[in-house]
Amino acid sequence: MAGTDSTQTQKAFKAAPVVILVEPQLGKNIGMSARAMLNCGLTELRLVKPRDGWPSEDALAAAVGAVEVIESARVFESTQDAVADLNLVFAATARRRDMTNRVVTPRQAAVEMQDFLGDDEDGGNRAGILFGREAKGLKNDDVTQADAIVMVPVNPAFSSLNLAQAVFAIGHEWYLAAIEESGEPQANSALAIPKDTRPADKAELNGMLQHLEDELDAVGYFHVTEKRPAMLRNLRNMFQRASLTEQEVRTLRGVIVGLTRKRGQ
Amino acid sequence: MAGTDSTQTQKAFKAAPVVILVEPQLGKNIGMSARAMLNCGLTELRLVKPRDGWPSEDALAAAVGAVEVIESARVFESTQDAVADLNLVFAATARRRDMTNRVVTPRQAAVEMQDFLGDDEDGGNRAGILFGREAKGLKNDDVTQADAIVMVPVNPAFSSLNLAQAVFAIGHEWYLAAIEESGEPQANSALAIPKDTRPADKAELNGMLQHLEDELDAVGYFHVTEKRPAMLRNLRNMFQRASLTEQEVRTLRGVIVGLTRKRGQ
Repeated sequence: MAGTDSTQTQKAFKAAPVVILVEPQLGKNIGMSARAMLNCGLTELRLVKPRDGWPSEDALAAAVGAVEVIESARVFESTQDAVADLNLVFAATARRRDMTNRVVTPRQAAVEMQDFLGDDEDGGNRAGILFGREAKGLKNDDVTQADAIVMVPVNPAFSSLNLAQAVFAIGHEWYLAAIEESGEPQANSALAIPKDTRPADKAELNGMLQHLEDELDAVGYFHVTEKRPAMLRNLRNMFQRASLTEQEVRTLRGVIVGLTRKRGQ
Repeated sequence: MAGTDSTQTQKAFKAAPVVILVEPQLGKNIGMSARAMLNCGLTELRLVKPRDGWPSEDALAAAVGAVEVIESARVFESTQDAVADLNLVFAATARRRDMTNRVVTPRQAAVEMQDFLGDDEDGGNRAGILFGREAKGLKNDDVTQADAIVMVPVNPAFSSLNLAQAVFAIGHEWYLAAIEESGEPQANSALAIPKDTRPADKAELNGMLQHLEDELDAVGYFHVTEKRPAMLRNLRNMFQRASLTEQEVRTLRGVIVGLTRKRGQ
C-alpha cells in the first residue's frame, strides 16, 4: 500500500531486536522479510547459512526499498554463532516441540522484550528472534538456543505462514509495544479532521438546527404538534452524533437553502 | 513456516468479516492475500475489477493451499456493489485522508467488529474490510463507502506494506479477538510440557536436592559451616526456578550419580 513519507525520520527505537533467519532458502523471502522488518522499525538482520548464498539480487529486489536492512545483513555459520551476543532469544515456531519450553504469544514476547531492554540502563542487553527455513521451520537444536518459543496464533486448520508474514506478525507486536512505550501517538478512534477546518462549536450546530427547524415549520412538516419535540430531538441527536465540522455545518446550511429554493428559480 | 495440522477442522467463526480487494493488480498478490486470510480464519474474498482478469492461475499458485478462498471469490463491478450487503465497513489506508473520518487501529477495528457481530442475535449483520490497489491504495470515493478508516501503525519512514501483509495485519487482530471471544485456548507463558512426562512434584524435587546435598556433604563442599544454609537455599532456588519435569529430575539424579562415580570405575 502507498503511504511512505520519506520526510519523516525513522524513530530510533532503543535496542530493537535482531531478526535471525536460519538457513533461509529463497532470496525473495529474505527480501520480503527485510521489508516487513523495516515496516516494524527493525533494521538488524542476521542470516545463518542462506542456501543460495549471499549477497542475493533476489533479496534486494524483493526488499522494495528496505535496502539498508539487506545491505547491513550479516551471515553466520551456525545459529549458536548468530545468537552469541544476545541475552534474550525467542524461537518462532508454528508447532509445539516435544521439549520443555516456555511458549508465549507475539504480544507477550513484545512485552518481555520491552521490559528486558527497558530495565537495562546501559543498553548493553540485546534481544533476538529466530525464524526457521521456509518449509520446515527451526530444528530442535536451533530452538534450544532460545529462552522461549513464540507462536503466532493462527487458524489451526491452515497455519502455514509465509516467512515474511511470520516476521511481520512478531515484529509488528514489538513495534506496537515500542510506540506505546515511547509515547508516540497512535491512531485512535477520535475523528481525524482535515487541517483547513475544525469541529463545529455548539452555536454553529444549533444555528444550523434552528435554520432547519424554521424551514420545516415553514412547510408544515411538524403537523402533529405533540410530536414536534420528539421529532426535533431525533433530528438534533442525528446531527449531534455525526460530530460535524464547521465546514460541514456550513455545507448543511447550504443544503437547506438549496432544498427550500423554489424549483425553476 | 511449517505446522499446518490438516486433522484439525477450522473453527467456524461467527460472521467473519469479508475481505474486499479493490482493483488488485497482480494475481500473485491476490493469492498471497487469500493465504493470509485463511491463516486468520477468513474465507470470504471479494474482488472489485481485478486488473488482469479472473480467475487467475497466478492467484491460485500464490495461495499455497488456500484454494477454497480463491475458488469462492466473487468479482464485482464497483466498490459500492461489493459492500452492498455489509453493515459495517472499514477502509484500510496507509495515510490520513483530507476527509473527516474516524480512524482506528486494527485492534480497535477487531473489537468493534466483534461487538457489532456479537450483538446481532440473528447473525444477519456482516462486516467487511476494503483494501486498495497495490501501489496507490484506496481512492477517496472508495473510502467514503466505509464507516471508518483502519490504519496499521507502522514505521512512518517506511510504511509501504505489501498487500497481503496489510490483509494479515488487520485479519490477524480480528482472529485474536475472535479466539479470545470464543474462549479457544491461546498460547500462554506457562511451560509446554511433552506428553510423556509431567511437572515434577515437590517430593521428587526435594529427593533430588537431598541427594545432591548428601553427595556435596560427602565431598566436603560446605566447608564453611555458617554458609551452608545460604548455599543450599541458592541451589534449591535455582532448580525450583527451572520448573523441572519428573523426567528431568530423574536425569539430574543420574547426573549426580555419574559425577560422583570414581573415575575409571
